[in-house]
Amino acid sequence: MDELGFIKLAERSMSAVSSCGEGIGDDCAVIPTSVGRVTVVTTDMLAEGVHFRLSTSSAYDIGWKSLAVNLSDVASMGVRPVASFMAIARPDGLSDEWYEEFMAGYRDLSVRFGVPLMGGDTTASESGLTVCVTAIGEGEAAHVKRRSAALSGDIVMTAGTLGDSAAGLSLAESGSTRYPALLKAHLSPSPQVEEGQWLGGRREVHAMTDISDGVAKDLGQICRMSGTGARVELTRLPLSDDMRRYCAEENIDPAVPALCGGEDFKLLFTVDEAEADTLAADFASHFGYAPYPIGRMTPSGGIEWLRHGVAVNERFTGYIHR
Amino acid sequence: MDELGFIKLAERSMSAVSSCGEGIGDDCAVIPTSVGRVTVVTTDMLAEGVHFRLSTSSAYDIGWKSLAVNLSDVASMGVRPVASFMAIARPDGLSDEWYEEFMAGYRDLSVRFGVPLMGGDTTASESGLTVCVTAIGEGEAAHVKRRSAALSGDIVMTAGTLGDSAAGLSLAESGSTRYPALLKAHLSPSPQVEEGQWLGGRREVHAMTDISDGVAKDLGQICRMSGTGARVELTRLPLSDDMRRYCAEENIDPAVPALCGGEDFKLLFTVDEAEADTLAADFASHFGYAPYPIGRMTPSGGIEWLRHGVAVNERFTGYIHR
Repeated sequence: MDELGFIKLAERSMSAVSSCGEGIGDDCAVIPTSVGRVTVVTTDMLAEGVHFRLSTSSAYDIGWKSLAVNLSDVASMGVRPVASFMAIARPDGLSDEWYEEFMAGYRDLSVRFGVPLMGGDTTASESGLTVCVTAIGEGEAAHVKRRSAALSGDIVMTAGTLGDSAAGLSLAESGSTRYPALLKAHLSPSPQVEEGQWLGGRREVHAMTDISDGVAKDLGQICRMSGTGARVELTRLPLSDDMRRYCAEENIDPAVPALCGGEDFKLLFTVDEAEADTLAADFASHFGYAPYPIGRMTPSGGIEWLRHGVAVNERFTGYIHR
Repeated sequence: MDELGFIKLAERSMSAVSSCGEGIGDDCAVIPTSVGRVTVVTTDMLAEGVHFRLSTSSAYDIGWKSLAVNLSDVASMGVRPVASFMAIARPDGLSDEWYEEFMAGYRDLSVRFGVPLMGGDTTASESGLTVCVTAIGEGEAAHVKRRSAALSGDIVMTAGTLGDSAAGLSLAESGSTRYPALLKAHLSPSPQVEEGQWLGGRREVHAMTDISDGVAKDLGQICRMSGTGARVELTRLPLSDDMRRYCAEENIDPAVPALCGGEDFKLLFTVDEAEADTLAADFASHFGYAPYPIGRMTPSGGIEWLRHGVAVNERFTGYIHR
């Protein structure tokens, strides 16, 4: 049974239990708490050999990243992360120093956004290291941004460059230490916690998600859940200088890592067309950098890729996490 | 680094981040949401080879129990579970039927208490099966019961018989199918969700926890966190007929599994002395069975064990989960 098969089984199994809010389908579940307020919840499991290797990731980076992926999910809902929980299955053979570095990475990211670790579980593992982090966010119900809220005509924006993490993964796997910024984008990504909260407060922002599986797949989800299509201009994809250089050296079309690379953890959102320029300017004056418009939502029909305004017949598919 | 060492490391690492509520130390973390309301959160990880073996536990029981341990934690806080989240690392080699049975167990317990599964994560595993469930509860801040709230003079009660799970574990490990009720107590325990909520609404109930590590250890925690001692009358320990019979056959002092056996998942709570009889009568008329008074909180000094009122010099220590 593959991942999708298991998710469908879980949904089918649970259809008899009525939900108290919105569950499977968005970056976080949304639970109403009191009038106008919600709690959002997300959980992610990182397994040795699947999401990281002890030979290529440092303890610090594993600690950092196990929290980062969850804070990114909370940010993409437009609310503030207020607590995290860590469950960890620990094999024999990792040193005290390893765990100290692991907790240092987790702590440094916690401190950066003021999110306390409020509980968890620790167990022995007969096999590999497994880390499962749950993050809780809190905020106004009216601020919550869903994947399903895009409207035809909306401008599609990302809050950062694309494909850095995919390039960093290739570098890490080849053992290279060139391009430290790309390696860092993969090994210890920075979730856009402040940007997510700020965008949550703007009514002209309609749909939002974080890019965990690549723009092709994550924007595809927005289209599917909003009942819309999208048109993306490949020449507008924001690429870092390092990514361009790396792709030139490796003879890779940079659109491929930019659209299909996983784990960029940049926010991807759609904005009312009439307000898009103002929103971008306000964002830039608040954060010191501008978000990147990459396309536009259309009435239907999946994603169409354009180069200089002309439809291209390429297929981009998202990154498959296992 | 052992479990306690890791917990201390985590606490030390996070001391720089101020908490938004009450974190590590009780069955759940408590996060204030709005005036007079709280969200409670707990997470538990079950690992193959540590918490269960695929050879002795059925898929159904593993699914059931992975949720049961978390619902028990929420119940022990005195509030209502409102949602669960499941992260699962799945190795190759388990059949579709296995996962269907697993989800059937999870679903049946969810249906029983009306708790929806609202999200999660699924990943491949290069090693064993690992299941991490997070449960969220909601309720009035005034109803929350803490381990730290016992007062000297309180009557100590349990809401069910003790040691059944420990006996069931021994039976399961020996491959025996005798005493199905004891096996069931271990393999698919019933969390006292309704009892927990009901006790949460009673002001005369001071401290509460669920018995996951044995009365000796869990009551010891209440003593330590409340700054009290306790006196427990061994002849008052509630034992099921099956447990008595099993212990007689095996030539075991039933006080040992009753006090040191893990995973009974019965509620253990302390009640204002003046109200204890009324509370017990009200509980019995509501649930159709009475809670069991087993002792009394004392001003200080850990737990003293009595037999017919006379102190005995036995040492009981809790069950060590790995």
